[in-house]
Amino acid sequence: MVVAEQPVDDLPAYVERLAFGARQASYVVARLNGQRRTDALRAIAAGLRGESSTIAAANERDMRHARESGIGDALLDRLRLDASRIEKMAEAVEEVAGQPDPIGETLSAHVRPDGLRIEKRRVPLGVVAVIYEARPNVTADAAALCLKSGNACILRGGRESFHSNAAIGQVIGDSLERSGLVREAVQIVGTTDRALVPLLLKQNQYIDLVVPRGGEGLIRTVVEQSTIPVIKHYAGNCHVYVHEKCPYDRAEAIVLNAKLQRPAVCNAAETILFDASIAERFLPSIARKLGEAGCEIRGCARTIKLLDGVKQATEQDWYTEYLDLVVAVKIVDGLDEAIAHINKYGSGHTDAILTDSVAAAQRFVEGVDSANTMVNCSTRLSDGGVYGLGAEIGISTDKLHARGPMGASDLTTYKYVVTGDGHTR
Amino acid sequence: MVVAEQPVDDLPAYVERLAFGARQASYVVARLNGQRRTDALRAIAAGLRGESSTIAAANERDMRHARESGIGDALLDRLRLDASRIEKMAEAVEEVAGQPDPIGETLSAHVRPDGLRIEKRRVPLGVVAVIYEARPNVTADAAALCLKSGNACILRGGRESFHSNAAIGQVIGDSLERSGLVREAVQIVGTTDRALVPLLLKQNQYIDLVVPRGGEGLIRTVVEQSTIPVIKHYAGNCHVYVHEKCPYDRAEAIVLNAKLQRPAVCNAAETILFDASIAERFLPSIARKLGEAGCEIRGCARTIKLLDGVKQATEQDWYTEYLDLVVAVKIVDGLDEAIAHINKYGSGHTDAILTDSVAAAQRFVEGVDSANTMVNCSTRLSDGGVYGLGAEIGISTDKLHARGPMGASDLTTYKYVVTGDGHTR
Repeated sequence: MVVAEQPVDDLPAYVERLAFGARQASYVVARLNGQRRTDALRAIAAGLRGESSTIAAANERDMRHARESGIGDALLDRLRLDASRIEKMAEAVEEVAGQPDPIGETLSAHVRPDGLRIEKRRVPLGVVAVIYEARPNVTADAAALCLKSGNACILRGGRESFHSNAAIGQVIGDSLERSGLVREAVQIVGTTDRALVPLLLKQNQYIDLVVPRGGEGLIRTVVEQSTIPVIKHYAGNCHVYVHEKCPYDRAEAIVLNAKLQRPAVCNAAETILFDASIAERFLPSIARKLGEAGCEIRGCARTIKLLDGVKQATEQDWYTEYLDLVVAVKIVDGLDEAIAHINKYGSGHTDAILTDSVAAAQRFVEGVDSANTMVNCSTRLSDGGVYGLGAEIGISTDKLHARGPMGASDLTTYKYVVTGDGHTR
Repeated sequence: MVVAEQPVDDLPAYVERLAFGARQASYVVARLNGQRRTDALRAIAAGLRGESSTIAAANERDMRHARESGIGDALLDRLRLDASRIEKMAEAVEEVAGQPDPIGETLSAHVRPDGLRIEKRRVPLGVVAVIYEARPNVTADAAALCLKSGNACILRGGRESFHSNAAIGQVIGDSLERSGLVREAVQIVGTTDRALVPLLLKQNQYIDLVVPRGGEGLIRTVVEQSTIPVIKHYAGNCHVYVHEKCPYDRAEAIVLNAKLQRPAVCNAAETILFDASIAERFLPSIARKLGEAGCEIRGCARTIKLLDGVKQATEQDWYTEYLDLVVAVKIVDGLDEAIAHINKYGSGHTDAILTDSVAAAQRFVEGVDSANTMVNCSTRLSDGGVYGLGAEIGISTDKLHARGPMGASDLTTYKYVVTGDGHTR
C-alpha cells in the first residue's frame, strides 16, 4: 500500500490498482470460513491495542494540522483518538467478530418435481468502498463489518484524519498478514488527492457497492459521480404523531425524548403532529417544557392560536430537518391527515405514532411509507445497536437492497445454487 | 388516462401527472389485503378474455403499421396477438394471482431485553416503472406482478405495440374499476413521444424502481438517464466447465443442451471449458456433434491442436456473448483455472460445473461469482419458471436488491415496525 499525502504520480493507474487488488482479494476472502474471518478480526483488535501509542502519535499529527488550519472544537473532538478511544475501537471490532456469521445462510431451498434442487444462498457482495468524513474510528468499524461479511473493502476517509487512518490501516494490514490473509482485503486510500474519488467511483467493473457516510453534500456528490450502486444515508425528517388515544404522560415523555435527547442526529423528531381533539389539553404544557429546554416552536395556524409567541411555520418548515433545537408543530384532524402529512413532507426515515388503539397503530404502520415505523416509543430508538444488529455501516434511506439500519448481513447478496443430476431443458 | 399517438401538449406536466398519480395510487394499493389484490388480478384475466377481439383489433392496427414500415418477420411475430395468445396472457395473469402473497411476511422479529419488539416486515416498494420493447404481453405480465406485490406501476412499451398496449391498458383500467380499485394503480403511457422516457426517469420523488426489459442499448440508455434506482437485466456470457470427474455421456448431453437448445437467449452457454486430462477423450466427439448442428467453434491454442479446421479464439471471444451458433472452447488445467477464467471473462449470469466430485462442485459454487451456479445441469435451467418463482419480471445481473430471476417478491422492500410501551432513549 502506497501511503502518500502528496498526490501519487499516476492517479488513474493507482486507483485501478487499488480496485483490481480489492477484486482479487475479494475472491480469497469470500472463500474463507467464518472462523478464519473471526480470527482475523480478533487479530485486528489485538493489533489496535498493541499499536495504540503509534496510532495516537499519528492522530497527534492530524490534530496539529487541524488546529493550525483553525478547525472548530466540535470537529477537533471528533478527530481526536486517545488510548481510551482506541480501546473502544478495538472493542467495537471484537463485538463485530462475536456476531453470528451472515455468510452461507440458506435463505430458501426447495426441490422441483423433477428433482432439481434450487437453493438461494447468502454470499458476500465482493468489494465495498466506503467514503467517509472526519471520524477515524469509522476506518476500523467499516473494515470489521466488511471482513465479517466476507467482502474486501477500500476505505477513503477525510483528509483531516489522513495520518490516523493510515496508521490504523497499517495495523489492520499487519494483522491480516499475521492471520495469513492478504493485505489487499482492507485497503486505505493512500493519498489525500481530491481527484481520486471521481476515479474510484467509476471502477464499477471491480467495486460492487459504495457507501458514503457523511453530510448531504458528500452523499449527493457520490451519487452524481458514481457508476457503482450507492446506498444512500440521507438524514431524517422524523415525526411523532400524538393520536387522540394517547395518555398525556406518555405523549410528554416521548415527544421530549424524541426532540431533545440529541437534536443533532438523524432520528431526532423534527415535526410533532397532535390530534385536534387532544391538542388543547396536551399542547400548552408540552410546549412549555420544550420552551424551557430552549427549543423554538414553529406552529400551524391552529397551533399559534393555542400558544402565545409562537412563529407560524412556512410550507418549507414541514420539509425541514432542523437538526437543532427547533420543532414544527401541526394540529391534524385524525389519523388519515397525519399519515398523508408524513408521506408528503417526511423523508421516509423514522416516524412514530403514540396511541392505545390497536387499530390506529396498525393503520399507521401500514400507511406510513418509512423505513422505521414506531409505535409508542421514541424515534431515537431507530438504530442498529438498539435493534440488536451490532455495529451498523449506516442507516439506509433507500428502499432497494437495504432499508433502515444496515449491519454486516446487509453487505451481502445471494446466489442461486442449482444442483441437478444431468438435468437439461 | 390520455391515449394519444401524437405528442401530448405539455409533456413535462403529463409525466408529472402520471408519476404523481401512481404515487397516490400506491398508497391505496399498499393497504389492500391480499384477497383484494388477487381478485383484481382475476378480474383483469376475465377482462382480457372478454375483450379479446377488441385487443386483437388494436393489435391489427399495430401489425399494419409495422408491415408498412417494413419490419422483419421475427419482430412481426413478437408483436402479433391472436385469440390464443390473448388467452395465454390471461392464463399468465391468473398464474400470478394464484401465487402466495409476498406482502406482510415477517422476515425476522425479536424482542429486546427491555421489551422493545423489533419486526422486519415485507412491504411493497411503492411505484415501479417498466420500460420495454416490442412484445405486448409484457404489459399484462408486468401489471400482474406489480399488483400482486402491492405496487402501482407505470408501463411504457415499444412504439410498435402502442395500440395493443393501449387496448390492454384500457381493459386493465376497466377491470380495476370494476374491482373497486383506482385506475391509476396501472398506467400505460399514452404517447409514443420519445422525449417522455428521459422525463419519466427523473421522477425519483414519485417512482421507486425502474425495470428496463430489452436489449443492451435500451438498458444502457435507462441507466445513464435515470435518477431512480434501476435493476439491470444485461444478457449472459455463460460457461459450462467439464471437470475431469465428469462421465462422457453427461458432458455431451449437457454441453449440447446448453449451447444448442436455444442459442439466442441469455442463459445459453457461450464458452465451454474442458479439463486438460479429459479434453483429448471428450472434445473431438462433442465438437463433431456441435459441428453437425451447425455450430462454429473458436478454440484456444490447445483446442486447435486437437481439432481440425477450428479457428483460434481471440481475447475478445472469451468476453463475447454470441447469442448464436458459435461457441468458444478452452482447455484448462483444473478447477482453479476454470474459476479464474469465469470470474475474469464471464458476466456473472449463469455458470455450470459438470462433475462427480463433491469437493470440486463445492469449490466451484463458492468460487464462481455468478448469480446462478449450476452443478450437473444445463445453464438453460436458470429461469424463474424453472425455479418455481412463477412469472418473472426479468433476470437481474445486478448484485444489489435482487440477483438472478426476479419474481413478485423481488418487487418488495421491508420496513422495521418497532413497538414499545413508552420506551425512550
